[in-house]
Amino acid sequence: MVYSFTNDYSEGAHPRILESLMKSNLIQHTGYSLDCHTEHAARLIRKEIQCENAEVHLIVGGTQTNLITICTALRPFQAVISASTGHINVHETGAIEATGHKVLAMPAADGKLTPALIQEALDFHTDEHMVQPKMVYISNSTEIGTQYKKAEVEALHHICRQKGLYLFMDGARLGSALTSSVNDLTLEDIARLTDVFYIGGTKNGALFGEALVIINDALKPDFRFMIKQRGAMLAKGWLLGIQFEELFQNHLFYELATHANEMADQLKKALIAKGYSFAYDSTTNQLFPIFSDEKIACLEKEFSFNIDKRVDEAHRSIRLVTSWATTQEGVQAFIGAV
Amino acid sequence: MVYSFTNDYSEGAHPRILESLMKSNLIQHTGYSLDCHTEHAARLIRKEIQCENAEVHLIVGGTQTNLITICTALRPFQAVISASTGHINVHETGAIEATGHKVLAMPAADGKLTPALIQEALDFHTDEHMVQPKMVYISNSTEIGTQYKKAEVEALHHICRQKGLYLFMDGARLGSALTSSVNDLTLEDIARLTDVFYIGGTKNGALFGEALVIINDALKPDFRFMIKQRGAMLAKGWLLGIQFEELFQNHLFYELATHANEMADQLKKALIAKGYSFAYDSTTNQLFPIFSDEKIACLEKEFSFNIDKRVDEAHRSIRLVTSWATTQEGVQAFIGAV
Amino acid sequence: MVYSFTNDYSEGAHPRILESLMKSNLIQHTGYSLDCHTEHAARLIRKEIQCENAEVHLIVGGTQTNLITICTALRPFQAVISASTGHINVHETGAIEATGHKVLAMPAADGKLTPALIQEALDFHTDEHMVQPKMVYISNSTEIGTQYKKAEVEALHHICRQKGLYLFMDGARLGSALTSSVNDLTLEDIARLTDVFYIGGTKNGALFGEALVIINDALKPDFRFMIKQRGAMLAKGWLLGIQFEELFQNHLFYELATHANEMADQLKKALIAKGYSFAYDSTTNQLFPIFSDEKIACLEKEFSFNIDKRVDEAHRSIRLVTSWATTQEGVQAFIGAV
Amino acid sequence: MVYSFTNDYSEGAHPRILESLMKSNLIQHTGYSLDCHTEHAARLIRKEIQCENAEVHLIVGGTQTNLITICTALRPFQAVISASTGHINVHETGAIEATGHKVLAMPAADGKLTPALIQEALDFHTDEHMVQPKMVYISNSTEIGTQYKKAEVEALHHICRQKGLYLFMDGARLGSALTSSVNDLTLEDIARLTDVFYIGGTKNGALFGEALVIINDALKPDFRFMIKQRGAMLAKGWLLGIQFEELFQNHLFYELATHANEMADQLKKALIAKGYSFAYDSTTNQLFPIFSDEKIACLEKEFSFNIDKRVDEAHRSIRLVTSWATTQEGVQAFIGAV
Repeated sequence: MVYSFTNDYSEGAHPRILESLMKSNLIQHTGYSLDCHTEHAARLIRKEIQCENAEVHLIVGGTQTNLITICTALRPFQAVISASTGHINVHETGAIEATGHKVLAMPAADGKLTPALIQEALDFHTDEHMVQPKMVYISNSTEIGTQYKKAEVEALHHICRQKGLYLFMDGARLGSALTSSVNDLTLEDIARLTDVFYIGGTKNGALFGEALVIINDALKPDFRFMIKQRGAMLAKGWLLGIQFEELFQNHLFYELATHANEMADQLKKALIAKGYSFAYDSTTNQLFPIFSDEKIACLEKEFSFNIDKRVDEAHRSIRLVTSWATTQEGVQAFIGAV
Repeated sequence: MVYSFTNDYSEGAHPRILESLMKSNLIQHTGYSLDCHTEHAARLIRKEIQCENAEVHLIVGGTQTNLITICTALRPFQAVISASTGHINVHETGAIEATGHKVLAMPAADGKLTPALIQEALDFHTDEHMVQPKMVYISNSTEIGTQYKKAEVEALHHICRQKGLYLFMDGARLGSALTSSVNDLTLEDIARLTDVFYIGGTKNGALFGEALVIINDALKPDFRFMIKQRGAMLAKGWLLGIQFEELFQNHLFYELATHANEMADQLKKALIAKGYSFAYDSTTNQLFPIFSDEKIACLEKEFSFNIDKRVDEAHRSIRLVTSWATTQEGVQAFIGAV
Repeated sequence: MVYSFTNDYSEGAHPRILESLMKSNLIQHTGYSLDCHTEHAARLIRKEIQCENAEVHLIVGGTQTNLITICTALRPFQAVISASTGHINVHETGAIEATGHKVLAMPAADGKLTPALIQEALDFHTDEHMVQPKMVYISNSTEIGTQYKKAEVEALHHICRQKGLYLFMDGARLGSALTSSVNDLTLEDIARLTDVFYIGGTKNGALFGEALVIINDALKPDFRFMIKQRGAMLAKGWLLGIQFEELFQNHLFYELATHANEMADQLKKALIAKGYSFAYDSTTNQLFPIFSDEKIACLEKEFSFNIDKRVDEAHRSIRLVTSWATTQEGVQAFIGAV
Repeated sequence: MVYSFTNDYSEGAHPRILESLMKSNLIQHTGYSLDCHTEHAARLIRKEIQCENAEVHLIVGGTQTNLITICTALRPFQAVISASTGHINVHETGAIEATGHKVLAMPAADGKLTPALIQEALDFHTDEHMVQPKMVYISNSTEIGTQYKKAEVEALHHICRQKGLYLFMDGARLGSALTSSVNDLTLEDIARLTDVFYIGGTKNGALFGEALVIINDALKPDFRFMIKQRGAMLAKGWLLGIQFEELFQNHLFYELATHANEMADQLKKALIAKGYSFAYDSTTNQLFPIFSDEKIACLEKEFSFNIDKRVDEAHRSIRLVTSWATTQEGVQAFIGAV
């Protein structure tokens, strides 16, 4: 029996969410997210972020959410700036380009954009023979497990305001960032500092679902047309509503992410104690420890995980992902096996 | 308490499906539809259609399935022929055009394409100054409740073969068509006569999900790239697999559709008995009875449904949709109220 | 030697235009339409239309101009309303759809849109499950030789204003419309009544070139990015500038169109005198006379022209197009041959 | 009077080309590149490249030619590999992305792709969560004045064959590459080693025009539909035919490029003699000498040119471009001024 650290979407939903779905199963609902659960979930989120005017849309998956948001925000010749490790730049099969827009990938060793990198992109694009940067895309936590501090997001907010850029935070793993031990950001901060962001459900205890929160009025008009056109308007939309109701009703969202982080912390501390190092200095639910090829071959017999990259002739880094469903037994088994 | 005949996706999933989702909830699965349930569901469907080489992809929604299939099949200058009432022509917010392709809408009083209509489209498009028709899109059952007989699909198959066109059947409501009292088509026939089609789950007892079945080898290569690029690759893909396993394990798919049709039949017979007529001669789970404006105003107090269109100064047709979850009580109440 | 009435772009440019191109040939110019001739041409056009704030862009061809203008004006889910005979609906190989937008084709027997047809399109598109009409596209003169009267454009202007639609006039054959004997519109009127329009050069004496005139400020920002992105920014842009300078310097634009209309008029009068009838009641440089199949076979030996459509078992309409270069001899020869 | 070294498209056309356009001006031609001059030009080019089956299309501009070729060759999820300095990656306002495709930009110090860089791109893109590389785009001469040797193109050809990639050569400045003193490639070689390439006219003595040559049969079907859809089918297409007839009738193409290279050579030798160095080791009609800021300020009074980039605190490189029309006097004046 192999235990999986491959990702944070290997199990279904938290039992409280499933139970809620069961309870409402035979009740008739209005379709296409015009139901009362969706409305209630939106209210809960607006309250959580302390922003009455925010528009909330619940969408099944992250790639959909990214492509709809970006292609709503940009005119045809405009581009989005991303860290080169950004999900939209690497792992969405060109979904953004398929909507017609260039992703301007900036090298960022720790997976995080900075005002300097944004300025570099702006300086390069000077006239109508080049695309026009108009949006900044950041992931929090990032694809390599790092996360943004409040001062960093404030700096990004500042340059975006100044240069007329939209700031968009991909929060597929936002829960893990917000409950990390080094975090100093709140959802309220994020709502104040970004133009649009989303709160990931898929990777934090829901069957599926991302809650897109639009703060900037310019991005709101007719957004549902975009959702429908891209095939992202779920017929039984209340399924999304119910899940986000549960996540934001009794702090379940934070509890689940906290658990994922704790499991990662246990792994991290144990590996450090054993003298292992890491490819990136991650502080969330993704770890990238470096092992010898022999050790990896050995671990692969009992655990599943992805290879990150080759570090030197005899070593590679691997990616370990913990989740709301990761068990204490799984973690201890891995530590034991190492 | 209003009872809804608005559509066939007002309730969740059939209890057997929900139960199966519950049972597997905490078991770790491989993501992105590479799990064992999805593989099993595909095997069940291939067996059902008696086609070993068919490729099966499970996708969350119908608009996604339509746009991915059509934009995979067509080169940039090619177009898809549809009845003017076709879902892709009217109710998908230009999703097909958003992938770059023209929908050639042909007038079809009963919602069904014919070889003559296809020939008309071909005759009109003669050179490189016009789009090139390359695919024929049909819905079965259609958007107005009618359905294709075997001889009709054979005739479409014949002209498509002859003219080098792909034949694509949108089966969002295929269950209702296949279990209708006038039906003479089987899934096996459909697999033999079309190049690609899908079997609707959303409107027939699943929480969501459409099973796309690709018969023509030309449409198969790298299809998963298309699914991913359009944001339609569900992280927890096994949720789709489990649902279609249940639907095709013990004939549940047919049972549920049969129930929907029976409920529609009861309504239809009762309305005919009372002397009402219908806007279209539907034989599936959608009915379009014509009522006076006063009658409609009265019915709206107890039931929800969509208005179809104005018939004359004092009458409109409405759309009544039954489903696997429609209750005998609901139907009797409606008949009583009329 | 066959004489051609196939179209109005069978010859090169008016000698005055060619001469001007010759004269400037070895003078160094700034590229990409940032030269003095282009600026001068724009000034001449702004003066002609009495609109100081208009933005003028010179673009090589009509399909480019249409697709750039429409895709600049529309958000991804918005659509353009056109007569079903409109050039963008039929003869541009789906160029508009290739930019992601649906063309809403309305049947218009005389090739002209009316407020009633626009209202019909608006009434049909009611929510986010359908595209959102946002632009009205008209051709003047139309593809079947008819033309808009001032009152008609005023009525279109009125409904567009009222409904928040952009009004776009394709003027590939605007010269012929403006110099027709029944015309009561001026360029100044058009600038007052539309949001954007263009003045065709290709079909009125230039080697190539359409002068796009943007009136509505909402359509102006960053328009050159769109031109460049769609491959429509001519490196040696002054070639366009010089041609439009000549056309608008000494009324050459009107002179050339007047000649085309006169040639058509002679043909029309002669054919009427001989008892022939026409498929459409055209008043510009396109005529659609109806001949017997035998007569057509006979005419084809000496003249080239396109077939329009079959009228009855023994008759078809043909399309005769005259231009600034059509000779008196050609016209007389045709009349003689009939 | 400022003399311009800004680019190689500051003047009109070579007098022999203009003369030929004059001569045919009032002769009636078939439109849309179906005329005899275009056919003749295609024959001349097929003979020059010794490839009877090549398909030749004459297109107005380079960005159009690039975007049409690339979007014809790629399926929606496929990408094109380019040097990061490639024209399609930087200077076409996202034209390729606007057709839906990602440009995979590889760093190449000298502007040239290598098998190693291509292999790196292939190694990175491993599954359906990423785009699929399918085409390799190279410019010859490159955007920074360097050029490919025969062995280099053979090596690219080899890896492309092996990996199933199309090899596409952008020849906007092919004349300059082929007539450079270090060149060992012929048009015949290029036709043998690439799948598709084009021969630039705009930057080598034509008013406008690029001759696209399709070698690989897979890229030929229905290509004219793509040209029309993207607005690149010139109504008076014979204007392109006449120009390429002249260029390939009496070696004018090579003569003009040779002149441009000679002018660059004179500049280069003189600058080297004076001890100046260059940002790139160019061998064609573009030079990138490094000057002090004061020197540049001084030169800008008499000459126009583009700034390339800052080299150190006090120096920048500039771009000098020579052309078929560059005069001996211009060159001597620049040398004198330095």
